[in-house]
Amino acid sequence: MKTRSEYLASLQAMKHNVWMNGQRILRPWEDPQIKPGINIVSLTYEWPQSTEHQDLLTATSHLTGERINRFTHIHRSRQDLQNKVEMTRLYCRETGCIQRCMGIDALNALSVITHQTDAMFGTSYFGRLTDYVKFFQANDLVGNAAMTDVKGDRSLRPHEQSDPDLYLHVTEKRADGIVVRGAKAHNTAAPYAHELLVLPTRDMRPEDADYAVAFAVPADAEGLTLVCRGAAPSSKHEMAFPFSSRYATVESLTIFDNVFVPWERVFLCGEWQMAGYLAEAFATYHRHSYCGCKPAVTDLLMGAAALVSRYNGIEKSHHVRQKLAELMTTAELVHTCGLAASLKGQEQGSGTYLPDLVYANVGKYYAGTNLHHEMELVQDLAGGLVVILPLEGDLTSETLGPVLSKYLAGPADLAVEDRIRCFRLVEDLTASKFAGLLMVAGVHGGGSPEAERLAIFRSYDLESRVTAARRAAGFEP
Amino acid sequence: MKTRSEYLASLQAMKHNVWMNGQRILRPWEDPQIKPGINIVSLTYEWPQSTEHQDLLTATSHLTGERINRFTHIHRSRQDLQNKVEMTRLYCRETGCIQRCMGIDALNALSVITHQTDAMFGTSYFGRLTDYVKFFQANDLVGNAAMTDVKGDRSLRPHEQSDPDLYLHVTEKRADGIVVRGAKAHNTAAPYAHELLVLPTRDMRPEDADYAVAFAVPADAEGLTLVCRGAAPSSKHEMAFPFSSRYATVESLTIFDNVFVPWERVFLCGEWQMAGYLAEAFATYHRHSYCGCKPAVTDLLMGAAALVSRYNGIEKSHHVRQKLAELMTTAELVHTCGLAASLKGQEQGSGTYLPDLVYANVGKYYAGTNLHHEMELVQDLAGGLVVILPLEGDLTSETLGPVLSKYLAGPADLAVEDRIRCFRLVEDLTASKFAGLLMVAGVHGGGSPEAERLAIFRSYDLESRVTAARRAAGFEP
Amino acid sequence: MKTRSEYLASLQAMKHNVWMNGQRILRPWEDPQIKPGINIVSLTYEWPQSTEHQDLLTATSHLTGERINRFTHIHRSRQDLQNKVEMTRLYCRETGCIQRCMGIDALNALSVITHQTDAMFGTSYFGRLTDYVKFFQANDLVGNAAMTDVKGDRSLRPHEQSDPDLYLHVTEKRADGIVVRGAKAHNTAAPYAHELLVLPTRDMRPEDADYAVAFAVPADAEGLTLVCRGAAPSSKHEMAFPFSSRYATVESLTIFDNVFVPWERVFLCGEWQMAGYLAEAFATYHRHSYCGCKPAVTDLLMGAAALVSRYNGIEKSHHVRQKLAELMTTAELVHTCGLAASLKGQEQGSGTYLPDLVYANVGKYYAGTNLHHEMELVQDLAGGLVVILPLEGDLTSETLGPVLSKYLAGPADLAVEDRIRCFRLVEDLTASKFAGLLMVAGVHGGGSPEAERLAIFRSYDLESRVTAARRAAGFEP
Amino acid sequence: MKTRSEYLASLQAMKHNVWMNGQRILRPWEDPQIKPGINIVSLTYEWPQSTEHQDLLTATSHLTGERINRFTHIHRSRQDLQNKVEMTRLYCRETGCIQRCMGIDALNALSVITHQTDAMFGTSYFGRLTDYVKFFQANDLVGNAAMTDVKGDRSLRPHEQSDPDLYLHVTEKRADGIVVRGAKAHNTAAPYAHELLVLPTRDMRPEDADYAVAFAVPADAEGLTLVCRGAAPSSKHEMAFPFSSRYATVESLTIFDNVFVPWERVFLCGEWQMAGYLAEAFATYHRHSYCGCKPAVTDLLMGAAALVSRYNGIEKSHHVRQKLAELMTTAELVHTCGLAASLKGQEQGSGTYLPDLVYANVGKYYAGTNLHHEMELVQDLAGGLVVILPLEGDLTSETLGPVLSKYLAGPADLAVEDRIRCFRLVEDLTASKFAGLLMVAGVHGGGSPEAERLAIFRSYDLESRVTAARRAAGFEP
Repeated sequence: MKTRSEYLASLQAMKHNVWMNGQRILRPWEDPQIKPGINIVSLTYEWPQSTEHQDLLTATSHLTGERINRFTHIHRSRQDLQNKVEMTRLYCRETGCIQRCMGIDALNALSVITHQTDAMFGTSYFGRLTDYVKFFQANDLVGNAAMTDVKGDRSLRPHEQSDPDLYLHVTEKRADGIVVRGAKAHNTAAPYAHELLVLPTRDMRPEDADYAVAFAVPADAEGLTLVCRGAAPSSKHEMAFPFSSRYATVESLTIFDNVFVPWERVFLCGEWQMAGYLAEAFATYHRHSYCGCKPAVTDLLMGAAALVSRYNGIEKSHHVRQKLAELMTTAELVHTCGLAASLKGQEQGSGTYLPDLVYANVGKYYAGTNLHHEMELVQDLAGGLVVILPLEGDLTSETLGPVLSKYLAGPADLAVEDRIRCFRLVEDLTASKFAGLLMVAGVHGGGSPEAERLAIFRSYDLESRVTAARRAAGFEP
Repeated sequence: MKTRSEYLASLQAMKHNVWMNGQRILRPWEDPQIKPGINIVSLTYEWPQSTEHQDLLTATSHLTGERINRFTHIHRSRQDLQNKVEMTRLYCRETGCIQRCMGIDALNALSVITHQTDAMFGTSYFGRLTDYVKFFQANDLVGNAAMTDVKGDRSLRPHEQSDPDLYLHVTEKRADGIVVRGAKAHNTAAPYAHELLVLPTRDMRPEDADYAVAFAVPADAEGLTLVCRGAAPSSKHEMAFPFSSRYATVESLTIFDNVFVPWERVFLCGEWQMAGYLAEAFATYHRHSYCGCKPAVTDLLMGAAALVSRYNGIEKSHHVRQKLAELMTTAELVHTCGLAASLKGQEQGSGTYLPDLVYANVGKYYAGTNLHHEMELVQDLAGGLVVILPLEGDLTSETLGPVLSKYLAGPADLAVEDRIRCFRLVEDLTASKFAGLLMVAGVHGGGSPEAERLAIFRSYDLESRVTAARRAAGFEP
Repeated sequence: MKTRSEYLASLQAMKHNVWMNGQRILRPWEDPQIKPGINIVSLTYEWPQSTEHQDLLTATSHLTGERINRFTHIHRSRQDLQNKVEMTRLYCRETGCIQRCMGIDALNALSVITHQTDAMFGTSYFGRLTDYVKFFQANDLVGNAAMTDVKGDRSLRPHEQSDPDLYLHVTEKRADGIVVRGAKAHNTAAPYAHELLVLPTRDMRPEDADYAVAFAVPADAEGLTLVCRGAAPSSKHEMAFPFSSRYATVESLTIFDNVFVPWERVFLCGEWQMAGYLAEAFATYHRHSYCGCKPAVTDLLMGAAALVSRYNGIEKSHHVRQKLAELMTTAELVHTCGLAASLKGQEQGSGTYLPDLVYANVGKYYAGTNLHHEMELVQDLAGGLVVILPLEGDLTSETLGPVLSKYLAGPADLAVEDRIRCFRLVEDLTASKFAGLLMVAGVHGGGSPEAERLAIFRSYDLESRVTAARRAAGFEP
Repeated sequence: MKTRSEYLASLQAMKHNVWMNGQRILRPWEDPQIKPGINIVSLTYEWPQSTEHQDLLTATSHLTGERINRFTHIHRSRQDLQNKVEMTRLYCRETGCIQRCMGIDALNALSVITHQTDAMFGTSYFGRLTDYVKFFQANDLVGNAAMTDVKGDRSLRPHEQSDPDLYLHVTEKRADGIVVRGAKAHNTAAPYAHELLVLPTRDMRPEDADYAVAFAVPADAEGLTLVCRGAAPSSKHEMAFPFSSRYATVESLTIFDNVFVPWERVFLCGEWQMAGYLAEAFATYHRHSYCGCKPAVTDLLMGAAALVSRYNGIEKSHHVRQKLAELMTTAELVHTCGLAASLKGQEQGSGTYLPDLVYANVGKYYAGTNLHHEMELVQDLAGGLVVILPLEGDLTSETLGPVLSKYLAGPADLAVEDRIRCFRLVEDLTASKFAGLLMVAGVHGGGSPEAERLAIFRSYDLESRVTAARRAAGFEP
C-alpha cells in the first residue's frame, strides 16, 4: 500500500491536463480549491497505516493474497460489503465525502457485469478486468468513475441527440484498441485520481451500440481535458470556512477528444444489452456507499446542532432534543439500509458480492430527500447569527474586535471565540457554497430520487404482495 | 411441539375467567370476535409442522437440545434475532399480527435482566427463569406480555396515584410467594394464551419498590379476570370483512384481584432500580418484532393498493407507481431497521442476544408515524367506492343484485365479484373498526412515538458526533 | 323558509325508492343508519329560525328579494362566498359534514356555465335554470349533486367503455324532454334530499356528446333507485358512538333506469365542449366548501385531542402542545384558502361570483392529504385505550362495572364516566367505520388529490413566474 | 415622495459609521456587497413614480391627506393590510426581499401599542409617535427595525445575563432624553436606512424594566456603529451570480454605545408590561409581510424550476409537473394566510388595523418550514450541473470555451449561453452563500418556527374547540 507522500509524488508525475477557471494548473498543490480534495484522499493512505481500524480499512486480495487498501478490494462476502459501508461512515465523519468509493464501486460493478457479458456473448472482458484489478491493487490507485454523460436534451436517447457527442461513444475500432469521443460530467476527484473508469450512464437500444462502452484510462491520457471546479472557499481566512477550507471535493467536467484506449483496458464495447445492467450495478454499489457517507454527514450536522445549542444555552429545551432525535433517526434509517443491503447481498457469477438493490436504493432515496430538512433543523437551532456573524476583518479589527467579543458572548462559561468558531462551522456546513454542493450532491449523487424510485419499483417483488392481498381478500387461490 | 388441535384442547381445559360485553364466555370457540384471534395463533402450531420454512419457524433449545417452536426460543446469536424478524414478517403477511411475539420477547428480556439483577443484588431470579423457560418450551406455550398498567393520572408516578392500585403492585409477601393487585391493559391474545408474563411498565424510584415486580401466572389463575374486546367484525357476512373475519387480535384488560404467585414464578420483586431496564429490554425486543410485523402490514396494504389499481384500470399511471414505490420504501425502511438491529445485536451476560436499541426504536418509530399515511395512499388509489360499495344485502338481492353487478364493473376482462371483493379488502384494512385498531396499534404498540424518541435520544452516542463536529470546526483537541 | 317539521313531512310524502341492505325502506325515519343524516339536514332548517347567526345562515334572493336559506342562494358578491365558507364551518363544527352544500354548489356552477353555454351556442339554459332556482328557493329544497359516474375502466373515456351505461347518458330525445340511463355514485344525502342535480363528471370529446348532460330530477322520480349506505353505527348503544349515532351522512349509489327529464329541467344536453367546464366549476365551488368543512373536522379532532390529554393528565406536556399547534396550523391553512378564494372570487357573465380556482383547490388538496396525519396525532395523544376500552356490556355489568370504573380512572378530579365518554369520542372520530368514511371522504370528496393537483397546475399562471425567473437570471427581456 | 436620486443623495449626506470586514466604508456606493441592497431599496422610490400599480404602491396619509409611499403608511383598513401583502409580493418577485417592510411594520406596531400604553399608564407616547410618523412620511424615509438583541445565554432573561448589556437597555434618564447601551443583531438594510426603530425583543418582568424601551434614532447617530455583512457575492463576474450581484440584502450588527435619544423619539420606557405586546404586535405585522415576500421567493424558485426543466428537455414529465404543482401549492398556502390575516384584521384603539395574529403566524410558520424543501425540488429538477458548471474563466477561455459550449448544450432549439445562465440562476438561488442567507432568513426572519408555534398556541381559541368536542361526545352542557 502507498504512503501519503508516495501518493502525492505520483500526482506530481502526471501530465498537465487539469484546468480551473481558464487556467491550466499543476497537479496538485497550486490551487487552494484543489488542496482540500487531496487532503481527503491523503487520509485513505494515512489511516490504514495506523493500527486502529486496520480490519476495516484494509483487506486481503483474493487475487494475490496481499494486504491491500479496502478501496481497491473486490467484495467477496457480505462482511466485505458491511465493512465498506462502515469504513465509508468512519472516513466521512471526518471528511464529509471520502471520494475514493466511486473507483472501487466501479471495479466491483465491472467484475459482476463483465462476467455476465462473457457468459452471454462469449467475450473475454472478465479476464482483462481481473488483470486490471491486480494492477490497480498493486499500485494502490485512486479511481474516478466517469459515468454521467452531459446528455443534451434529456428527453432523447443517445443516438437521437442533435450532436452525437453528447453521449460518449466509440468513433473508431482499431486492431490495438478503440477511440472514444464525448464528455463526462460530475467526475468527483478526477484531478487527483490516477485512473478514470468510464461506464455507460443508462440502458441502451441497438441504435445506441456505439455508446455501450466501458473502459479505464489514465487520468492524464492523451486527448483528455479536465475542466475542474472545487467547493472549497476561495477566501484566505481559514476560520471563515473551518471545514471546507480543509476538506472539500473537486469535480471535473472531463472532455474525451478522440482518446485512444487499448483493448486490454476495454470492458464493454457494443454489447448494448448490458449497458443498463452495468449502469444499474454501479448505481447499486454506489448507493450502497451513500448509506455510509450520508449518515456521516448527518453525524456532522447533528454534532454541529448539539454544539450550537450548547453555545446558545438552549440544549435542555424539549424542542432541541426532539430535533436532535429527528437527526438521529434520519442518520440511522439510512445506515440501516446500508447494513441490510450488505446482509442481503448476493454472490454473483464472478464470486463478487452485490448489495441488495432495493435496500441500497431505499437508503440513498431517503438520504437524498431528507438532507435539506436536516440543514433546516441545524439552522433552526443555531439562529440568524449563522449568516450575520461579522466577517473576519471585523472580528480581528483593533477597533471592533473587543466590542464584538463582548456582544457575541453566549453562556458565561463558554469562550466567545469558540462560539464564533461553532457558528462558522454551521455556516460552512449549511449556508455556503460548500453547503450548496453538499445539498446537490445529496440529491443527485449516485442518481436522482426519480432514478432511485424507478429502480425500487422495477426490482421490487410486488407480485408476492399482490398474492398476499388476494389471499387476504379471500380470492380463490 | 404442539399441534393445532392440542393447542385448542389445552384452551378448552382452562377455567372460565374471560368476559366480553358483559358475558362470561368459554374458551375459545363460542364468540366470533375471539375466533379470528385463535385462528392466528393456530397457524403458529400448524406451519412449523410443514417442511417449508422449518429453519425459520423452529429452533434448537440451548437448554435441552430439543427442536422447539421459535416462539419459545431464547436468542443465542445474531442469526436468531434475524430469524425472529423474518419469521414475524412471514407470519404477519398472512395474518397482520401474529401475537405470539410478545411472549417470547418478554422471556428474552427477563433472561437478560434477571441475570443482571442477580449479579447486582445477589438474587437467584435467573435460575428460576431458566426452569420456567424449560417448562414453557416443553409445553409449547403461548405467553401474553402484560406490561402496560392502567396508569390513572399519567403525570404522576405509581406511588403518587390517588388509588395505589392504578399500577399493579405487591400487596403481600408470604413464605411461598407474593400477592399482587392491579390491572394491566392492552393484553393482546390474553384470552387464548396459556400464560401471562407480567412486567413493570416504567422506571421506578425507591418509593415505588412494591411496583417493581415481574412474574408469570397461568392465564386462568385464581383472582384473574380478563375483560376482552376483539377487532373482528360482529357482522355475519364473511364477504363484508374478508380479512378481519378470519384474522384479528383480541385484547384484554386484565384485572389482578389479589392474585397469588409462588416464588418460583417471581422474576423481580422490589429491586426498583431494575424496573426501568426490564421495561426497556422488553420494549427493545418488542420494537424489534415490529420491524417484522409492520412491513408485513405494509405488504398487505401495498398488495391491496396494486390490486385495486388494476381493478380501476389505472395501474400504469405514473402517480400510481409513485405511490406504490412510496409504500415499498416505507416497508423496507422499517424492515432494514429490524435486520440492522439483529446484525448489531449484542450478547448479554446471560448469553442472550439483545437487538440494538437505537435501530429497533428507529424502526418502530418510523413505522408508527407513517402507517396513517400508508392508509391514505391506499384509499387514494381505491377511490370513494371503498366506503360506498352497497351492503351485502343489496348485492345479493334478486332485485338489485344484477343491476349493481352491471354498474360496479371495472375493466372488461376482470370479474365484477372480484372487484367487489377487492374493495371490501381495502375497506377492511383501511376504513373499518379493524383498521382503527391497526392504526392505534401502529402508533402505540410497543410504546408511543414519544417513548421511542426518548429512548433513541437517551441511548444515542451524541457525544461522539459532538466530537466530530468540534474536530470539523477546528477546535483544539 | 321551511321549518324542521315541514322538512320531515315533505320527506314522508315522497315515493319509496330508497333501498338499504336489500330492503326497501320508507323515507326517512325507520332506519337508525339514515336518521343521523336527517338529523344533520334538519339543523339547516332549525338554526336559521333562531336570531343568532341569521346574517350568515340566510340571504336575500337576488331573484325575488325574499329572505332565503343561504343553502339556496346564488352568490352575488365576494362576501357571499365568504359567508358560505364560514356558514359551512359553523354547521360542520356541530355535525362534521352539513351535506346541503353540494346542492347549492351545483346550482351556482350551473348558473355560471348555462350562461356561458347560451352565449356560445345560442341555447336558453340560463333562463330555465333561473326559473328552477326560484322554485328551489321558494320551497327551501335540499339538493343532492349527482356527479361521479361509476366509470368502469378508468383508463377509458365514456364512449370507449365496454358497457355504454357506465357513464350516464341520454338515450332518447323527445319533444317534451330527454331520457337518461346510467348510475351516479357517492350521492351524499340523496335519500333525504328533494332533488338530484345531475352533472357531467369530466371533460368530454365529440364522441361523448350524449354524455354531456346536466339536469334536475326529483329524488323519487320514476325509474330512479337509490341503493344506500350509512356511516352510522348499527349498534344500539348511543354511548359507544356518541357522535356518529347522532350525526352521520348517508350515501347513495343511484341508478337511472331510463329516467325521463322534461326540457325545462335540462341544463346541458350535447354541448360536449362545456362538460369539462361545468365539472370544473362545480369542483371549484365544492372544494371551496371543503375549506369550511374540513377545518371544522379539525376543530372537532383538535378539541377531542385537547380533551383526552386532560383526561390523561398530560395536557401541560411540551409535545402535547406542539401537536395541538400542528392541528391548529392545519385547520387554519385550509380555512385561509377558503377566505382567500372568496376574497379573490370573480364575477362571471351571469353575475354569479366564482371562487378563485387555485386557492379553492390548494385548500382541498392540503386538507385531503393531511387528515390521516391529524387522526394519527389524536390517537397519539389518546393512547391505546381508544380501541381497548371495554364494551358497553362490560361497563354496565353489575359484576364488572365497579371494578372497571376503578381501573379506568384518570386524574383524580375528573369523573371516570366522562373519561370513558371522551375515549369513545376519539374512537368514533378516528378508529371506527365512521372514521373510515371521514378519511375516504377527506381524500376523495370534491375530487382526488391528483385531480386537484392537475387543476392547480393547469390554471396557475406559471408563465409569469418563468418571466420573473428570466428577469432574475438577467435574460434579455 | 422622494426620487431614487434624492434617496441616494440623502445617504451620501450621512455620517460614516458603517463598517465591513474591518474597514469603515462610505455610504453607500463603494462596496459591491452593499450596492445590491441599495439597488433594492431604490426600486421603492422608482416604481411608485410610474403609473402602473400606483394604488398598490402609494397611499393617502390619514394624518396629512398627502399621497405617500405605502411603506410609510399606517394601515387604516383591511384593504390597506391586503395592499401591503400584495405590494410586498410584487416587489419581492423582482428582488427576493424588499427590506423596507420592517420600518413600516415597526411604526404600525408602535401606533397600536403606544395608544394602549397611554390608556393604561397615562403616558403620552401616541402623540409623540404620530408626530414622528408625519416626519417619516414627509421625508419618505427608510426605517430599519432593530429588534433582536444579541441575547447571550438564551436560557436567561435580560436582567439575569452575566453582562447586562447583552440586551439593550436604558443606562441613564435625563431631562431631555435617555441614554441606551447594547447591541441589536440582524438589522437588515441598516447601512442604507435613514432611521433605526428600536423595539424590545421579548416579554419582560419587573426586574427587566430598563430593558423595556422603544425609540427611533437616525442611523448615523452619535455612538452608533454598524458592523455589516452582505449576502452579495464578492466575485466580479456578474454572470456567476446573476441575481444576487444585483439584488441582495445587507445586515448589520448594530452597537449602541451610550446613544442619546431625546424624549420626543422615545415610545416606551420602563412599562415592562407592554414590552411583550409590542414585540408580538411587530412580529404579527412582520409575519404578515412574510406572507407576501415568501410566496415571491417561491415564485422565483418555481420559475427557475420550470425554466431549467425546459433547458433540460424534461418539462413534459409527470414528476416535473408534480413538483411544480407542489411549489405552487406552497406559494399559495402562504399567500392565502396573508390575505386571510388582512381580511380578518381588526381595528385597534388607535384606529390602526392589525392583521389576524393566528393567520399571520401560520403563514410564516409554513413558509419557514418548507423553504428548504422547495430548494430541494429546484435542485432535483436541475441536476448536478448546478454546482459543477465550469467557472467563468473556463467558459470564456479561448481554448476551452468552444468545447464547453458544445458539451453544455441542451435541447437543440435553445441557446447554450441561455442554458448556462439558467443554471447560474439556480446556483445563485439555491446553492450559494446567498442561498444560505435565503434559507436562514426563511427560518428565522420575523421569528423562529418555535416562536410562531408558541404564538399560535397561545392565541388560538382552543376552548371553543374543546366545547365542540364535549358537545360531540354528548357531555352534559
